[in-house]
Amino acid sequence: MPTSHPAPRFDVLAIGNAIVDVVAPAGEDFLASHAMSKGAMALIDAAAADALYAAMPPGQESSGGSAANTAAVAAMLGARVAYMGKVADDILGKVFRHDITAAGVHFPTPPLVGGAPTARCLIVVTPDGQRTMNTFLGACVAFAETDVDASVVAAASVLYLEGYLFDPPAAQAAFYAAADAAHAAGRRVALSLSDAFCVGRHRAAFRELVAEHVDILFANEAEICSLYETDSFDAAAELARDDVALAALTRGEAGSVILQGAETVTVAAEPATVVDTTGAGDAYAAGFLAALTAGRSLAACGRVASIAAAAVIGQYGARPMADLKALTAGVAL
Amino acid sequence: MPTSHPAPRFDVLAIGNAIVDVVAPAGEDFLASHAMSKGAMALIDAAAADALYAAMPPGQESSGGSAANTAAVAAMLGARVAYMGKVADDILGKVFRHDITAAGVHFPTPPLVGGAPTARCLIVVTPDGQRTMNTFLGACVAFAETDVDASVVAAASVLYLEGYLFDPPAAQAAFYAAADAAHAAGRRVALSLSDAFCVGRHRAAFRELVAEHVDILFANEAEICSLYETDSFDAAAELARDDVALAALTRGEAGSVILQGAETVTVAAEPATVVDTTGAGDAYAAGFLAALTAGRSLAACGRVASIAAAAVIGQYGARPMADLKALTAGVAL
Repeated sequence: MPTSHPAPRFDVLAIGNAIVDVVAPAGEDFLASHAMSKGAMALIDAAAADALYAAMPPGQESSGGSAANTAAVAAMLGARVAYMGKVADDILGKVFRHDITAAGVHFPTPPLVGGAPTARCLIVVTPDGQRTMNTFLGACVAFAETDVDASVVAAASVLYLEGYLFDPPAAQAAFYAAADAAHAAGRRVALSLSDAFCVGRHRAAFRELVAEHVDILFANEAEICSLYETDSFDAAAELARDDVALAALTRGEAGSVILQGAETVTVAAEPATVVDTTGAGDAYAAGFLAALTAGRSLAACGRVASIAAAAVIGQYGARPMADLKALTAGVAL
Repeated sequence: MPTSHPAPRFDVLAIGNAIVDVVAPAGEDFLASHAMSKGAMALIDAAAADALYAAMPPGQESSGGSAANTAAVAAMLGARVAYMGKVADDILGKVFRHDITAAGVHFPTPPLVGGAPTARCLIVVTPDGQRTMNTFLGACVAFAETDVDASVVAAASVLYLEGYLFDPPAAQAAFYAAADAAHAAGRRVALSLSDAFCVGRHRAAFRELVAEHVDILFANEAEICSLYETDSFDAAAELARDDVALAALTRGEAGSVILQGAETVTVAAEPATVVDTTGAGDAYAAGFLAALTAGRSLAACGRVASIAAAAVIGQYGARPMADLKALTAGVAL
């Protein structure tokens, strides 16, 4: 980082769709009868959300949103974190604001007044712990370039953007404006590819983005293979190594691979009783960025990331109820 | 049951305060700094609820309410269940209605329009799994005798009332009206004492109620000792044996004791990893009543009750996400 830039006030600024999750367990037959693609995130409108909710089993509600989960978990790990995303001025918006603020995250985005309600993600968890998501974007479609405060972007060591942000059209301009502001301030830009179907919807834009604007890339196996349109994880990983300065690629139970220049670090997955995989990737990115911005080694970043992911996988909901600082205190530098 | 009464359409009709829970983990110091009595339920007003919520860590929301939890869990176990309680016409009211209806419970009570919001219970879970509750009754105070449909009461084999229903004043008249209607139809009346402090608030009324109007009594050790103002569980249990036809008294890890006339059945607690004890007593009553109304033995009732309680104790939230029918399928008749 050039010495002409002031010291960052935040370790991470995350920007994403601000969403409240509704999680309910259901059998494989529920996915089949509602034509859902297992493990994926689909966008639905308000009417479809009402119909799906009516059909869903009893559930639990908690704050979600991919980058918001990452922000909350990174803050729980001790990182200094800010978040931008759009909720409505309604009960769920207040729940979202409470949860991210109580986690210690600075959340300056004003709520949307008189527009769509706070976004909801209806999540069906099958007995194997896989989550299948249906998102009603609601107030998120109102997030725009005007919501990006460049002074906050400039004050954060890493700008973290979720790929889902490409779904609401106005957010794309905010996405590029934030990335440009970060680089102008000498900061790094991180991107999570979010979902293989999301990559498919926006592949050309993502390819250009990754090659031209991203320093740190997070993706799972399906997402990185979708980005580079290959069936070979190894081939995709080598393409990512060429495109970005640092890539952290997750492979579920097979752990993760971290690539930085010629260096490759392989990290084992933390053992976990699989209850609900919602937010596992978000928590991985949180642990990784909290450790990275604290100056830890890549191996330590991978270990903290894996422990955070395991804590989320062992419970319902995307934000760990466990004491993450205690769980990760023993990770060697 | 006299043969002149028609066969019941419901196994259980539960009546109680309709509440949405907000559950968050916190340390013992949080209880001390907010002057909370660990394990108890305190009533708070809207302003206190806002202040406490602002101070609470990030949480998870799920439908609660003691008798509503019992209704939902009994229905998950296959019982035919109805529930009466008052929510508002707001987002949390819709969540409550969704969850209890999706569990298979008939919920005829219309929402309150233009009044107080849906009730909330702010629940702090300490590392030992104990829950400490602060309830803002909201729309529950509008539940009254006019909300009790005597035809539904008459159609249920067991009327189940939560002791908490004595806190909102108008509900007390509903309580007695429902009990009278149940007995007039040849049905049984069950009561849960809910909380030792609640018993303390209404001891004289509860003593009269138990002796004169209740056939089946549920209580934990602290509650039954508070009711009879004794430090001896054994002494309290004998007084309960004299007062009611059937009593199921729970003792946490020490299991439970079922008393019916001269008969005493001792039931071991089901082993569980303690995460959050919210709803353990509600689930116990649900398992007991589902088995009882299915004609099972008292020992089987106690076993099903203990398994249902253990399923709730092992997760955050008062309603089990696990498949309870599968968990209890092996219990012998």
